[in-house]
Amino acid sequence: MPVEGVRVVAFDVFGTAVDWRTGVARAVAAAAARRGAAVDEWAFADAWRERYHPALGAVRSGRREWVNLDRLHRESLDELLDRFDVGELFDDRERRELVRSWHRLPPWPDVGPGLERLRADRTVAALSNGGYALLTTLAKHAGLPVDAVLSAELAGTYKPDPHVYRTAARLLDVRPDEMLLVAAHHWDIEGARAVGLRTAFLERPLEKGPHGLPDRAVDVTSDLAVTGFTELAEHLAPPAAA
Amino acid sequence: MPVEGVRVVAFDVFGTAVDWRTGVARAVAAAAARRGAAVDEWAFADAWRERYHPALGAVRSGRREWVNLDRLHRESLDELLDRFDVGELFDDRERRELVRSWHRLPPWPDVGPGLERLRADRTVAALSNGGYALLTTLAKHAGLPVDAVLSAELAGTYKPDPHVYRTAARLLDVRPDEMLLVAAHHWDIEGARAVGLRTAFLERPLEKGPHGLPDRAVDVTSDLAVTGFTELAEHLAPPAAA
Repeated sequence: MPVEGVRVVAFDVFGTAVDWRTGVARAVAAAAARRGAAVDEWAFADAWRERYHPALGAVRSGRREWVNLDRLHRESLDELLDRFDVGELFDDRERRELVRSWHRLPPWPDVGPGLERLRADRTVAALSNGGYALLTTLAKHAGLPVDAVLSAELAGTYKPDPHVYRTAARLLDVRPDEMLLVAAHHWDIEGARAVGLRTAFLERPLEKGPHGLPDRAVDVTSDLAVTGFTELAEHLAPPAAA
Repeated sequence: MPVEGVRVVAFDVFGTAVDWRTGVARAVAAAAARRGAAVDEWAFADAWRERYHPALGAVRSGRREWVNLDRLHRESLDELLDRFDVGELFDDRERRELVRSWHRLPPWPDVGPGLERLRADRTVAALSNGGYALLTTLAKHAGLPVDAVLSAELAGTYKPDPHVYRTAARLLDVRPDEMLLVAAHHWDIEGARAVGLRTAFLERPLEKGPHGLPDRAVDVTSDLAVTGFTELAEHLAPPAAA
């Protein structure tokens, strides 16, 4: 049965729309080659992403003032380069370049065609913990067809804080139940449900690599469970006439 | 001599990118026909726009808390319908429809091709006093090729308050002098210059109709004076390699 009344499709970005692991690992491998450093790029990418939740949590809990994701990425990068014993080989310029690899990530193949289709009859927005500039660059670089970029930065905190979802709905002037969040992570789906958004869990079996343990649809409660953005478009009822 | 170092082209919307007068007058004429009301649609559109600056000024000065442009448009519409002696013919639904005519305005013909060209090698953003939802709908409806929508709503005040331009540069993570504002109004150009943005005055001889008095390039101090977005693209130096 199609889900009705959805005026805005808001989608999570890292993991849900783009393959951060491949994009970051490639950038790490290229930088390591330039610097003559021996680094397992996949292990490095995984370790970098592992620091994501603790770093965001410090801001979300109020233990730390708002800083954007670029800054958090830089801090965890500095720590990781030392832990991988290659700190002395990467200067500031190379580190800045690595932080920017999160601005240029490859989309999963279903994203472009799926968003294009969704966008034909409703508003499509990125809703991510990435900063506003990061998301703007990422959407442009990946050629994502979006109508709006809704960064957590606009709320001054991070998902799954309720304020992020509510700010998104307010800015697009829709009720929470007129906005559907698409995400590959249970905590994001739960955060959206808690403030009354509709939700679509999108399973990304390869998000964390061939041996990773991504979230699975069977473990997540959501209005819809889909395997890609194209399939999502099939599950939404056409919008009612304005 | 081309202007160098511009990473973001931010453009004003009403008058600069879209022909508000024609769009609004058509909507007023259609509504008047539906309601059997005799209204000079061009005079009505002009009078509606005349209320723009006083209404925004109340928020900018702090005399009034933040309200978005839709709300201000509705208040001035209610007043104007009475002044045009047709108030009793327009119910709430029709009034809401008229307010939404500001979300669906025709672009000037140079805008699509010009923005497409500008967007090929830098970030292009709408920077308007229209609300975030209004601008998102307007850009989508008019098919404007933009990378970002930067509403004054994100700053909680209206142009030419310096906070609006500074918020835009901060969100896109550029220095003020790396952002160029394109506008057809002297007060907007002056506001942008005051905080260190680069500026391009774009003359729109027909913005206020065949007998109107639009701002003229000869009266405005700006880095560039152009007659359209396509010409603007010719005046910007290619971006330096990152």
